[in-house]
Amino acid sequence: MRKLFISLLVVLVSAGASAQQRYVDAAELTVIGQPVPTDRPFARVDTSVYKFNDATIDRYANYSTGLAVLFTTDSRNIKARWETSGANSGSNMAAIGQKGLDLYIKKDGEWVFAGVGSPAMNKAPYDRHESTLVAHMEPGVKECLLYLPLFDKVDNLEIGVDQEAFIRPLANPFRHKIVVKGSSITHGAAASRPGMTYAARFGRDNGFYCINLGFSGKSKLQKEYALLLADIEDVDAFIFDTFSNPSAEDIYGRFDEFVDIVRAAHPDVPMIFLQTERRETRNFNTDREAFEAAKQKAAAEKVRQRMKTDRHIYFITSEDFLGDEHIATADGTHPTDLGFTYMLESISPKIKKILKKYGVR
Amino acid sequence: MRKLFISLLVVLVSAGASAQQRYVDAAELTVIGQPVPTDRPFARVDTSVYKFNDATIDRYANYSTGLAVLFTTDSRNIKARWETSGANSGSNMAAIGQKGLDLYIKKDGEWVFAGVGSPAMNKAPYDRHESTLVAHMEPGVKECLLYLPLFDKVDNLEIGVDQEAFIRPLANPFRHKIVVKGSSITHGAAASRPGMTYAARFGRDNGFYCINLGFSGKSKLQKEYALLLADIEDVDAFIFDTFSNPSAEDIYGRFDEFVDIVRAAHPDVPMIFLQTERRETRNFNTDREAFEAAKQKAAAEKVRQRMKTDRHIYFITSEDFLGDEHIATADGTHPTDLGFTYMLESISPKIKKILKKYGVR
Repeated sequence: MRKLFISLLVVLVSAGASAQQRYVDAAELTVIGQPVPTDRPFARVDTSVYKFNDATIDRYANYSTGLAVLFTTDSRNIKARWETSGANSGSNMAAIGQKGLDLYIKKDGEWVFAGVGSPAMNKAPYDRHESTLVAHMEPGVKECLLYLPLFDKVDNLEIGVDQEAFIRPLANPFRHKIVVKGSSITHGAAASRPGMTYAARFGRDNGFYCINLGFSGKSKLQKEYALLLADIEDVDAFIFDTFSNPSAEDIYGRFDEFVDIVRAAHPDVPMIFLQTERRETRNFNTDREAFEAAKQKAAAEKVRQRMKTDRHIYFITSEDFLGDEHIATADGTHPTDLGFTYMLESISPKIKKILKKYGVR
Repeated sequence: MRKLFISLLVVLVSAGASAQQRYVDAAELTVIGQPVPTDRPFARVDTSVYKFNDATIDRYANYSTGLAVLFTTDSRNIKARWETSGANSGSNMAAIGQKGLDLYIKKDGEWVFAGVGSPAMNKAPYDRHESTLVAHMEPGVKECLLYLPLFDKVDNLEIGVDQEAFIRPLANPFRHKIVVKGSSITHGAAASRPGMTYAARFGRDNGFYCINLGFSGKSKLQKEYALLLADIEDVDAFIFDTFSNPSAEDIYGRFDEFVDIVRAAHPDVPMIFLQTERRETRNFNTDREAFEAAKQKAAAEKVRQRMKTDRHIYFITSEDFLGDEHIATADGTHPTDLGFTYMLESISPKIKKILKKYGVR
């Protein structure tokens, strides 16, 4: 009788959230988001191949920004163990966006938010994390999309499933290939979760494969980026948030060479340039007002000039990127999830209209 | 000639952002947001007077959540120096919201975002902060509203203005008194900036004086809160986010006594109860689904029952608090600025309609 009770107890416990888990290396599942294939499973860009001559850009290239792991499982609980590399946080960032994980599960054809991987906080070791992403799910097979940290390097990542459950790679379900090159706005400095950048949302909402090449504060039309973009195969479109970081002088001096390099490698690919947002730091600061206005003027001039000779270049103006209530940024510059919502309401229909002309839908 | 050049240089430098500043103690300006007057300048509630028998609630009572400093100045640059007490961060919080400052300046009758006080990050001493809130403003007198940290105690705060500028207390410009008692949702766990909680936005948007008594995870209809609410003078309305933290059992067991105490002290004051949001943690987790559904059922039952005998009690349902795209929370539970926007779109017109009946407009 007592043995029966104990057996029953074991069965009950193993059916719950505290069931024994087994962990698999996420590198053995499907990893998407890398512009050029590399052996480094969780780095965006292989810095042994691409040289940027800038320690910060090298560091960002090794971040897992925009990367996601795809798998299918019949587990009722999904956990994760991962290590990040100790990157500093910005005052506008929450740890879930910076070092955390963001899980979506397919439901009625849509990717629906399922849970976050919450990083270790406030106690050492700060960069070794373990978190339950979702528990107590209904039985059945789930298709899972797990976004990786936006502002740190992932040294390793394991997915935990119930002992008896299967977990297998899921083929990339996203169509086409759209490369989004940009600043901290693209990088997602103030995105609440890794899957909430505008690039990730545009991809998820439309089924497009979007690659995030946002480099916070460092997206100044450098030639090194253009050489990387030139190497990416089968690109269907480029979206450029390339006017947020450079000064007006940088834009006048570098824009043409940047476009020349990308265009030589991708002769007919649409290049969609976003005007930089009208920053809220301009509201009262006359210095910022002058600096930002000069940037916007330079951007508009250079792109419109180029459009005269290149019919695959497009320009999207930014008046409505941050709404009109001054509530869309974390710090005057970086859009929050609300800012990205306003931005997507503005750019999504315009970008989709352009893409349609190229059969990208 | 050389002397003239140096004099000119001094004049030029002192006219710019790097002008010499003088600092004044913010406690000597106008501080708003305290429900009951206290000598502690930057604490919400005086814990020598109000006892909660819970170390976490005591800690939160000493936070500066919802407090703001009001002043007028003709300075062209505004800086701040402040110290916080070393409170831990949550994985859903950014430092600007947690320990930072959020400045608004009156422009054409509206409070317009002007800049943030960015906390010290990543290097000791972590809790001693110095930041330029806004620089290079046009000459002229500005009315300023500065929100204090949401999730830490402020040990001291000084405002820096240009050496020759004046800075004076500004009388509280907000009308009426609306007390918002609630959970981490009211507390603003995932608000990007201190002025972005729904209570602060509702107040700023409508000119109402809103007092934030959000206590993260600890808002379970405890009697001790009711005793505090009973002591607040001249309250025009209560808004209650009191069903997010308690279990269904807590709600059944505590609701009536909680209302009895508040009602005895405020016989005719409208008490507006918000149903708790439908959390995104329910999307796939069957345990969470059952727990949350039971809470919502208990809340609806208890409030509707009480409404039969108390015509100053109101209930606002929550179907649309988080929109329908599963993008409004930082972690499945806590609304981001986007979540607060959806929530305000839902509750603002309903609350204003109720308040109008009481002459609060």
